[in-house]
Amino acid sequence: MGTVELSLQEIGDLARRVFSENGCDAENTDALVRTIVTAERDGSHSHGLFRLPGYIASLRSGKVNGNARPKVAMKTLAIVSVDGDNGYAPLAIERGVPALADAAKKLGVAVMATTHTHHFAALWPETEAIAGQGLIGIACVCYTPLVAPAGGKKSLFGTNPISFAWPRPGRSPVVVDMATASMALGEVQIAARDGRTVPLGTGLDANGALTTDPNEILKGTLLPFGGYKGSAIALMVELLAAGAVGESFSFEAAEADIKDGGPPRGGEFMLAISPELLAGPGWAEHSEEFFRRFDAIEGARLPGSRRQHNRLSLAPRNIDATLLERIHALCN
Amino acid sequence: MGTVELSLQEIGDLARRVFSENGCDAENTDALVRTIVTAERDGSHSHGLFRLPGYIASLRSGKVNGNARPKVAMKTLAIVSVDGDNGYAPLAIERGVPALADAAKKLGVAVMATTHTHHFAALWPETEAIAGQGLIGIACVCYTPLVAPAGGKKSLFGTNPISFAWPRPGRSPVVVDMATASMALGEVQIAARDGRTVPLGTGLDANGALTTDPNEILKGTLLPFGGYKGSAIALMVELLAAGAVGESFSFEAAEADIKDGGPPRGGEFMLAISPELLAGPGWAEHSEEFFRRFDAIEGARLPGSRRQHNRLSLAPRNIDATLLERIHALCN
Repeated sequence: MGTVELSLQEIGDLARRVFSENGCDAENTDALVRTIVTAERDGSHSHGLFRLPGYIASLRSGKVNGNARPKVAMKTLAIVSVDGDNGYAPLAIERGVPALADAAKKLGVAVMATTHTHHFAALWPETEAIAGQGLIGIACVCYTPLVAPAGGKKSLFGTNPISFAWPRPGRSPVVVDMATASMALGEVQIAARDGRTVPLGTGLDANGALTTDPNEILKGTLLPFGGYKGSAIALMVELLAAGAVGESFSFEAAEADIKDGGPPRGGEFMLAISPELLAGPGWAEHSEEFFRRFDAIEGARLPGSRRQHNRLSLAPRNIDATLLERIHALCN
Repeated sequence: MGTVELSLQEIGDLARRVFSENGCDAENTDALVRTIVTAERDGSHSHGLFRLPGYIASLRSGKVNGNARPKVAMKTLAIVSVDGDNGYAPLAIERGVPALADAAKKLGVAVMATTHTHHFAALWPETEAIAGQGLIGIACVCYTPLVAPAGGKKSLFGTNPISFAWPRPGRSPVVVDMATASMALGEVQIAARDGRTVPLGTGLDANGALTTDPNEILKGTLLPFGGYKGSAIALMVELLAAGAVGESFSFEAAEADIKDGGPPRGGEFMLAISPELLAGPGWAEHSEEFFRRFDAIEGARLPGSRRQHNRLSLAPRNIDATLLERIHALCN
């Protein structure tokens, strides 16, 4: 099977139609369409239309509330609490981020604890939104057990992504967004779909042996990136996204989930920090001098720059034809 | 050369004598002795007596103020600012942590920006101190360029350690403390001293080629742990510890340093979060259930448990005999 070219407008229209026809109201649909279009725009295909069948499965099963009305509350001057009303994460996050940014601009630091949501996307849209306010943004979520702690052969961590965004006034921010698994689940699934192998060290088969076959890894367990150190970062993400927020650990999310193909219920940890208040005036020029040194190193590339490059293209995006057929079949 | 057995009391007495005889006042000496004794107690030899010659070199050169009086101020309700008065970090941190913990207990989150200090130790003592207050602690520092960004062959990052501590009421906390370099500088130095090789991937020689010889790596550059993802974490640490705090990036620290063998001037970023306020009551039982699942995985070990095991031993510690000779020669 090949690919089909779709403009970003066409991608958005298709996603909007599918969500609307499957019981999502306008507010939730708008937030989800923004999430899918920005993913395809930036070349982050594993978080774009690829996720649509899973979203729709969890709407149809009734697991996720397509008409959610997230509730934003301040627990303290520095804690934003967002109850997602059992909906998808994008609307909850869009509703909470302004309060998070306001608190961080006043106090220098604030956290946001999102609960009762279903997160099925990348994290950079929310940390970039924070960086767009001149703030440092950190976000993490856990998911469902897919990654074994270093030294073990049984999964406990989710792929546990963490995103970090550094604001650069007048320029695109530096944005890290990485699974703490050796490879994101979506990438392993796409490798399996496309019949490609993955690097040794990506994961273990069901017997706990290393393998390059993504299908075997999907039956076994992924490994963390970077051995014991990466495993420690995955642990930190799990504890922040679940323990600190008061939502499900990956193992709890999986146990409560009805396995309809959509995202389990979970939380999100977000942090915003004001460099203006913490470091004081001049912080931006100071860090720009660091970035000049970074850019002068041959072969080094600031995180997020590939996405920021991709988004400049007005050309249509290449969408997998089989995926498109599946998506069209989701329209009533 | 072999090793010499010293009790923790003897290690502390020796360190105290050396600091006192080289111009450190009682308050700074006490904080430094605690730092060195806890490192040796926990088996973290690269941050114990091994650092003493460097400390003394920077006292004798006049670079570091052995009589520093750190100043603690609240920039906002959630920002603790500590000016270290050009002294060593331990006293500045000990003075600032109570204010950081108080702010986090009231607001749910607080940050501490430490400036004008010289950090030459591990980070777990300060994150453990925060966890001891029932709070989540995160700390990071940068240092002097030793690590190349992934894809590059020229160092820009320090070994940029990050520490994360998770409180477990009534139990030892979970404590991550890791260099974002493939290996901590102290470990590479000790491998060089002991004539051991290091794993391929630890670093590059002066020509940018991979090598297992620690002496060649000390002339070239270390690499980040975990490839591009570890490099992104190293970048995050550099930006938090320098850009966000308003202190020197690693390249600035090196350029300003007089290369006396002691630590350059730098800052520290610290964060404290209250799980009680963020997640609410029951957070501890919730996370203990996660730790039970973790401990049930054969081969997996919670970060910090080796240090916590080592500290239970009342036996004398084995100290390198050559190092001890060097230290005795530092007494007047």
